[in-house]
Amino acid sequence: MAVEYYDFGPHKIHHSSVFHTTNLCFAFVNLRPALPGHVLVCPKRQVKRVADLTDDENTDLWHIAKKLGRQLESYHKASSLTFCIQDGPQAGQSVAHVHIHILPRKNGDYENNDDIYEDINEKENELNRALEVDIKRRDRSIEEMAIEADEYKKFVF
Amino acid sequence: MAVEYYDFGPHKIHHSSVFHTTNLCFAFVNLRPALPGHVLVCPKRQVKRVADLTDDENTDLWHIAKKLGRQLESYHKASSLTFCIQDGPQAGQSVAHVHIHILPRKNGDYENNDDIYEDINEKENELNRALEVDIKRRDRSIEEMAIEADEYKKFVF
Repeated sequence: MAVEYYDFGPHKIHHSSVFHTTNLCFAFVNLRPALPGHVLVCPKRQVKRVADLTDDENTDLWHIAKKLGRQLESYHKASSLTFCIQDGPQAGQSVAHVHIHILPRKNGDYENNDDIYEDINEKENELNRALEVDIKRRDRSIEEMAIEADEYKKFVF
Repeated sequence: MAVEYYDFGPHKIHHSSVFHTTNLCFAFVNLRPALPGHVLVCPKRQVKRVADLTDDENTDLWHIAKKLGRQLESYHKASSLTFCIQDGPQAGQSVAHVHIHILPRKNGDYENNDDIYEDINEKENELNRALEVDIKRRDRSIEEMAIEADEYKKFVF
């Protein structure tokens, strides 16, 4: 990859965490995934709201999300997927850069399957807190994230 | 509109609840909205999973969702939006027909803003139970839903 870091709001995502890119978008593994395979898909252009996306970006984001969702569900032996955009602070968005959450889902992954949503937000808040202060405070090491991203690169094309 | 009812999984959605259509998709007001302006966007073709959508359907769904989201947020004087697909039963999907939830969000709309998600699912379950048994058991009357849909038709184009 040509760049060392990808911009995600005010945060820098190391290229080794990024497992898929197009001209307009990139997909990366999570600092603190709520579930195995919980990844994010972003436009490269930093826009806050879905309404700010161009039609091409919107199309590309969901083209990628559909493809990755299927592949991650299969890889993680899951049986469903959650797709979610928290579009604005009152919807729980804590990084002001449009991003799709994709989460492979399984029976019993959460005792109440909808608890996942609270976790997404908590993780986002943690991401915010962790990365704003010091990149070294992240829960997962960059190496651990790179290993996951490398796994995904094997089947994502 | 040319058809009297639109198919939503095993359910029939009266045309008066449908406020926007394209060649491929339709948008309709909710039987029991979790919040004011909580609407659903569906492909006309009944497919269970996001992976079953054609690229054209996927693009059209999210083109509509982006547009309606902006318009509904403005109409309901909200400040954010939740976009969500529960893609499969393990993600909380109770109607086996792909549908995007769009919810205008405001400060304090839920005491914990993420409680919304539990409600989406509960509403879906209620929808399921209510419509399978008897169309007359729905909480909102068809007239009430038609009034809301008519309001939206004024600004959705």
